[in-house]
Amino acid sequence: MEILILHGPNLNLLGKREPGIYGTTTLEQINQILEADGKILDTTVTCRQSNHEGELIDRIHACPGKYDGIVINAGAYTHTSIAIRDAIAAVNVPTVEVHLSNLHKREEFRHRSLIAAVCIGQICGFGIESYRLGLQALVTYLKK
Amino acid sequence: MEILILHGPNLNLLGKREPGIYGTTTLEQINQILEADGKILDTTVTCRQSNHEGELIDRIHACPGKYDGIVINAGAYTHTSIAIRDAIAAVNVPTVEVHLSNLHKREEFRHRSLIAAVCIGQICGFGIESYRLGLQALVTYLKK
Amino acid sequence: MEILILHGPNLNLLGKREPGIYGTTTLEQINQILEADGKILDTTVTCRQSNHEGELIDRIHACPGKYDGIVINAGAYTHTSIAIRDAIAAVNVPTVEVHLSNLHKREEFRHRSLIAAVCIGQICGFGIESYRLGLQALVTYLKK
Amino acid sequence: MEILILHGPNLNLLGKREPGIYGTTTLEQINQILEADGKILDTTVTCRQSNHEGELIDRIHACPGKYDGIVINAGAYTHTSIAIRDAIAAVNVPTVEVHLSNLHKREEFRHRSLIAAVCIGQICGFGIESYRLGLQALVTYLKK
Amino acid sequence: MEILILHGPNLNLLGKREPGIYGTTTLEQINQILEADGKILDTTVTCRQSNHEGELIDRIHACPGKYDGIVINAGAYTHTSIAIRDAIAAVNVPTVEVHLSNLHKREEFRHRSLIAAVCIGQICGFGIESYRLGLQALVTYLKK
Amino acid sequence: MEILILHGPNLNLLGKREPGIYGTTTLEQINQILEADGKILDTTVTCRQSNHEGELIDRIHACPGKYDGIVINAGAYTHTSIAIRDAIAAVNVPTVEVHLSNLHKREEFRHRSLIAAVCIGQICGFGIESYRLGLQALVTYLKK
Amino acid sequence: MEILILHGPNLNLLGKREPGIYGTTTLEQINQILEADGKILDTTVTCRQSNHEGELIDRIHACPGKYDGIVINAGAYTHTSIAIRDAIAAVNVPTVEVHLSNLHKREEFRHRSLIAAVCIGQICGFGIESYRLGLQALVTYLKK
Amino acid sequence: MEILILHGPNLNLLGKREPGIYGTTTLEQINQILEADGKILDTTVTCRQSNHEGELIDRIHACPGKYDGIVINAGAYTHTSIAIRDAIAAVNVPTVEVHLSNLHKREEFRHRSLIAAVCIGQICGFGIESYRLGLQALVTYLKK
Amino acid sequence: MEILILHGPNLNLLGKREPGIYGTTTLEQINQILEADGKILDTTVTCRQSNHEGELIDRIHACPGKYDGIVINAGAYTHTSIAIRDAIAAVNVPTVEVHLSNLHKREEFRHRSLIAAVCIGQICGFGIESYRLGLQALVTYLKK
Amino acid sequence: MEILILHGPNLNLLGKREPGIYGTTTLEQINQILEADGKILDTTVTCRQSNHEGELIDRIHACPGKYDGIVINAGAYTHTSIAIRDAIAAVNVPTVEVHLSNLHKREEFRHRSLIAAVCIGQICGFGIESYRLGLQALVTYLKK
Amino acid sequence: MEILILHGPNLNLLGKREPGIYGTTTLEQINQILEADGKILDTTVTCRQSNHEGELIDRIHACPGKYDGIVINAGAYTHTSIAIRDAIAAVNVPTVEVHLSNLHKREEFRHRSLIAAVCIGQICGFGIESYRLGLQALVTYLKK
Amino acid sequence: MEILILHGPNLNLLGKREPGIYGTTTLEQINQILEADGKILDTTVTCRQSNHEGELIDRIHACPGKYDGIVINAGAYTHTSIAIRDAIAAVNVPTVEVHLSNLHKREEFRHRSLIAAVCIGQICGFGIESYRLGLQALVTYLKK
Repeated sequence: MEILILHGPNLNLLGKREPGIYGTTTLEQINQILEADGKILDTTVTCRQSNHEGELIDRIHACPGKYDGIVINAGAYTHTSIAIRDAIAAVNVPTVEVHLSNLHKREEFRHRSLIAAVCIGQICGFGIESYRLGLQALVTYLKK
Repeated sequence: MEILILHGPNLNLLGKREPGIYGTTTLEQINQILEADGKILDTTVTCRQSNHEGELIDRIHACPGKYDGIVINAGAYTHTSIAIRDAIAAVNVPTVEVHLSNLHKREEFRHRSLIAAVCIGQICGFGIESYRLGLQALVTYLKK
Repeated sequence: MEILILHGPNLNLLGKREPGIYGTTTLEQINQILEADGKILDTTVTCRQSNHEGELIDRIHACPGKYDGIVINAGAYTHTSIAIRDAIAAVNVPTVEVHLSNLHKREEFRHRSLIAAVCIGQICGFGIESYRLGLQALVTYLKK
Repeated sequence: MEILILHGPNLNLLGKREPGIYGTTTLEQINQILEADGKILDTTVTCRQSNHEGELIDRIHACPGKYDGIVINAGAYTHTSIAIRDAIAAVNVPTVEVHLSNLHKREEFRHRSLIAAVCIGQICGFGIESYRLGLQALVTYLKK
Repeated sequence: MEILILHGPNLNLLGKREPGIYGTTTLEQINQILEADGKILDTTVTCRQSNHEGELIDRIHACPGKYDGIVINAGAYTHTSIAIRDAIAAVNVPTVEVHLSNLHKREEFRHRSLIAAVCIGQICGFGIESYRLGLQALVTYLKK
Repeated sequence: MEILILHGPNLNLLGKREPGIYGTTTLEQINQILEADGKILDTTVTCRQSNHEGELIDRIHACPGKYDGIVINAGAYTHTSIAIRDAIAAVNVPTVEVHLSNLHKREEFRHRSLIAAVCIGQICGFGIESYRLGLQALVTYLKK
Repeated sequence: MEILILHGPNLNLLGKREPGIYGTTTLEQINQILEADGKILDTTVTCRQSNHEGELIDRIHACPGKYDGIVINAGAYTHTSIAIRDAIAAVNVPTVEVHLSNLHKREEFRHRSLIAAVCIGQICGFGIESYRLGLQALVTYLKK
Repeated sequence: MEILILHGPNLNLLGKREPGIYGTTTLEQINQILEADGKILDTTVTCRQSNHEGELIDRIHACPGKYDGIVINAGAYTHTSIAIRDAIAAVNVPTVEVHLSNLHKREEFRHRSLIAAVCIGQICGFGIESYRLGLQALVTYLKK
Repeated sequence: MEILILHGPNLNLLGKREPGIYGTTTLEQINQILEADGKILDTTVTCRQSNHEGELIDRIHACPGKYDGIVINAGAYTHTSIAIRDAIAAVNVPTVEVHLSNLHKREEFRHRSLIAAVCIGQICGFGIESYRLGLQALVTYLKK
Repeated sequence: MEILILHGPNLNLLGKREPGIYGTTTLEQINQILEADGKILDTTVTCRQSNHEGELIDRIHACPGKYDGIVINAGAYTHTSIAIRDAIAAVNVPTVEVHLSNLHKREEFRHRSLIAAVCIGQICGFGIESYRLGLQALVTYLKK
Repeated sequence: MEILILHGPNLNLLGKREPGIYGTTTLEQINQILEADGKILDTTVTCRQSNHEGELIDRIHACPGKYDGIVINAGAYTHTSIAIRDAIAAVNVPTVEVHLSNLHKREEFRHRSLIAAVCIGQICGFGIESYRLGLQALVTYLKK
Repeated sequence: MEILILHGPNLNLLGKREPGIYGTTTLEQINQILEADGKILDTTVTCRQSNHEGELIDRIHACPGKYDGIVINAGAYTHTSIAIRDAIAAVNVPTVEVHLSNLHKREEFRHRSLIAAVCIGQICGFGIESYRLGLQALVTYLKK
């Protein structure tokens, strides 16, 4: 099984910014953990990050025939990008939405996800574990 | 470790109602799966269900000193009960919010969770797996 | 045919409170009228009242296999209870919504019914006659 | 007793349009059923339909001294016509509002009735039976 | 000078309905007063009433070349008719908006006038005097 | 093929009002252009205008069996008439919505079309060309 | 009869500011015209202006026993001052609200009048004539 | 005089939860203070707490003939329970609403009280003193 | 201890206006009652009233070093004055907000208090007793 | 004449995704049809697609001096991109907005177009024909 | 050149209140800095402060012929005073709006400025520097 | 000191588009002015522009360790980009927001800045001077 982990804007700064809040684990380290998790789940995990909405869309478009599922943390685009929503709906590749922080504890404008309605489900608030649970949920879903 | 799984209103009907949508797994069977999961995670899992908002609050109140964490599916009370929110905030026992369905695909009034902001995180849309992921997330959280 | 008449919060006070507005007919007398109506319609009518949202849900859950239909006056819960809505939707027993007063003549927050969309229809504004018309409408519906 | 049944816009198409949804009973047949019901209730029933807001208002104005009550299905004007509301309020003839479909299951803009607050009560969702129950409710009301 | 007084829906009932509120002066008597006022102002006053939005529009369309100004009480259409607004804007005949009652003391939905922005000004709350003041204001305006 | 062109309120004034904005082409001339276009498209074009909401509904009702499609410019009723929407939905005759001006450049209340959702599509902003494009789009649609 | 004309904030600039819009008549000249009108109406007219909300309230408080009625142009305070509204309601002196410009042609926040509901009626859009009509309307009202 | 002090959801945790915020006084101690206050005011004070909306309603229903007044802290139900509002309105026993915290300093959804409009008055923000002031206010009210 | 009682706009009319509603007690008499209450509480009470927002701000500014606390009834400014809110926040003198009437029974625009969030607490609905309870609450607060 | 056809996000998937809904015509085939249409209209048609908001802006900036007009289907950016709106407004090249689907039949958030107000007009709902009509409308516009 | 610096409500407390937030510079010291800045810019700077909305309006009215421009920090009146807005618009003296704090980091109700639309521009968030930059911006503007 | 001037979408067109409104100064010329200003302020100024949201984010990410501060004119992204907001918040480099035009005089949707709350302050409305003032404000801020 092939899974794409797609990280949205500003996530490249993980472990480098505000370590007091987000910890000192870098995005690279998260990717390594997810790749290791993938091996246990008999799954090849590929990780990509971009700050560009268009590039995220391009990557989603490239999924059919190449990946069996997507775990996406669309970052701030979660709340503003109908285009990413349409991309996920169009390619019809099972997608799980994850977030490091609990969006509901933050500003009002982060409470609405434009992409949630086209994903299988949503996991938020568990830090790095959100990604790991998302990967696991997706693999379980695909095996059914 | 001791974990309480708290099921809210109408969840007692699981497996009995609308099997076309919700499958044929009953709440009892879900509870057995979660108890089994608990054993693997070295955790005692106790499951309770109630259709009464007040009883759910009473049960949350009874947690401190007895349970290390709560996995709650507050059902429809998720969207209407500030009292359950206050109960979770008051007892200060780590709590994970789960939902069987993806709330964001349903009616507008199910998009807002009144309890999310006082929980660690939220998992929705994965059917029974939402509970299992929630239990796992909670145990990981408590072990840190 | 078996019909459950379900009275929600504060309706136990009928005939005792504000007789100038609601008349002097008590809930018991209403129930007797409905039972008599039932006989004419070849139907057994059972009447229950509760001020507890959870108890109303429990009663709705107990309907399948026991009652062929429900006439419900959910009182103030009409405007606040998604849980009762879900209960009605789940048991899949034909339900008619009735109200003594014309909700549209009252406060703004009484204009929205959360349960109307899962009922066959709604009757309001005719005092005790709302119940009688609702019973009759339900029996006609069930006979088809 | 003299009762006017007033049908609003598009109701002349009944039985001819979308029979899958509305059945094959025509407006004429509904009128015959209501006239027959009237006889049983010792009441002369007169039925009128118009697609013109102004004509509906004219007909309401003509009621005092001629009709003892009105059963109105204002169709789409229910949600947009303050003028019909004012007409009903002005003539002071007891009026019952009926609808074939359950408005609460339809588009948001059909949830608000501008005329409900000046009617005795509202009945919706029971198909043709809505009219019959409305007629019966009105006669009961007038006899008191 | 030629002035058209245009009365909207339900105003034909004046003096006949709710005399406790609106007094016993009929529309005909108001028209006679306005015609008399016209004579003093050296102006021919013509009065028309209709309950039909379309007819009111037709009458407004017929104004250019025939009337120098319009005094309109659009009744309930004030709050719902963009079509009447467009008609007034199109014919480009100076128009004054009047209302018998003070709209701001009534229901929220009567606070917004869709036609006010295309009229010279608005006068409301003075009963019959609203018409008389409106006629006078229009004549003064036209003389400048 | 038979097509009905239906013009709503105030459009009879075209070419006569505000020539600076709307040009000097009258409605009659537009109709002649559309009839000529019809001939090229092998289609009989019939044009009707009314300022009366009810008459527009009557005309829509008369379409089945007589016209294969409708091009409608509902004018101001576009934003206020649920009744016209229901009429179009009921007769089930393919309908194209057109507007002379670009509604999105005008007042906020002209941005919402109540009839768009029951039409094939919408064309606005091209002046007389809107009608011509609408006619062409409808014929293309009907030929498929 | 004694009438107070109360001018609110910025009206002291009349005739001095933006003469292209408001003309060259100063507030003093308006006051002279109103005093002259008063004489014809057998009424003593007193005029006061203030830019201070508190002073306007003080002046309203001083009315009972001294003035039979008030014509008020509260300027911008019309839209923001609940305190002036309460003052008018408290003293119970008949009050007419006037405005030079047609508020409905201006910014959205000028469409709502906080004081209209405690006045007899409102006149706006006629320039200086708004005051004259207001004075006349008030005198007519008081004579009844 | 007999007064009922009614404590709503989560108030049983007082003194046990978040002592840093709410202090270490338990609900029992508060009740003792209020009973002592009652003696000074020549009043018997009875205290009840429940986390169940239905039970709070039941207790309010039991008041007539037994209690002369109610001091209620409805906790989170203040913002969500129309049923408790209706209960207070129905029994017609003078009621004072109190809150420990200043609701206006907290989340937006705590700013609206559904029960305030059916109570004599509201006291919030003074901690335990809110109850004591409420009791005193009620006794003063009843003595008049 | 020194306490300032600050009365906002229109409160100078107390006892003089609408005695049917507000009673016949004048502001002066209220002040005497509060001064007497002060003596019992070992507190000097000073009372000031103004209809001017600016003067109320000036008085609040003058408090530090002179008064230990403020009891304020800001009248209509409660709902419109951010400036008074800022003044209270700036001087950092403990302040209690009081109102004669129960704001929640009145117009929607009186339900929001702009100053409540910078006060200790709020008391409304008890007539003159609101002031007395507020004074008592403030003294209790200051003694702690 | 030179025309740029600009396709926004996800339109590169046309003919490849959801053929049941969008048909099997690919974007390339659409472009060929439009180029052929262009020849008939004596116009050179150039087609570009991008999923990147910034690239779409860059392309619009490159238009002056190179293209006489633009036909744009901005896809999901229609509803979220003020930047594209500003780009169209800035270059001042006549632009026509087109959409394959009827936006008014879809989710609420697709009903508002941020770019419509800076385009000549809008065409939506006719599938591929929307582009062809748009091209034709633009050429007609440019020829005038 | 003559410039008026106008300080609104509560700014007289600067340097005296909350020094932890606003620093220890008093309003007098700010004025001295601005006067010194003025000298460098070849400009006479006059500074005035008032807590009274009416006085601020009076001062703005006095500007024409005396001052070439205004730098205004309207404090809390920024968000509530349409009257100050109208005063600035009326006198037509170039005005720059400044604020010490960054309004966008504060409460929602401070995000809207009623006066911004009638000023040249707005500067906020730089503490005392906001005034200095505002003065400089105004002088640069006037020199052009 | 090193400062980055970041220009958002469409600003590359400056001096080329709408010279009547924006003047004939090109972006390059603005940059030269700012670089010259930088020299006077002992600061190296680097200028970058992009129409791509992602590229703006990339540039902000590259700032730490390279630039001491940012002056940003995010153009239309000001109102739609949470991602740019998050980037500024993440890198923790002091940032000043500037705009050429006074946003408050333009469309409603330009009144809200999503990035203002994470910047030091905001300057708008002074044309090119907005940048110069912003640069100066930033340098002053950094020197403290």
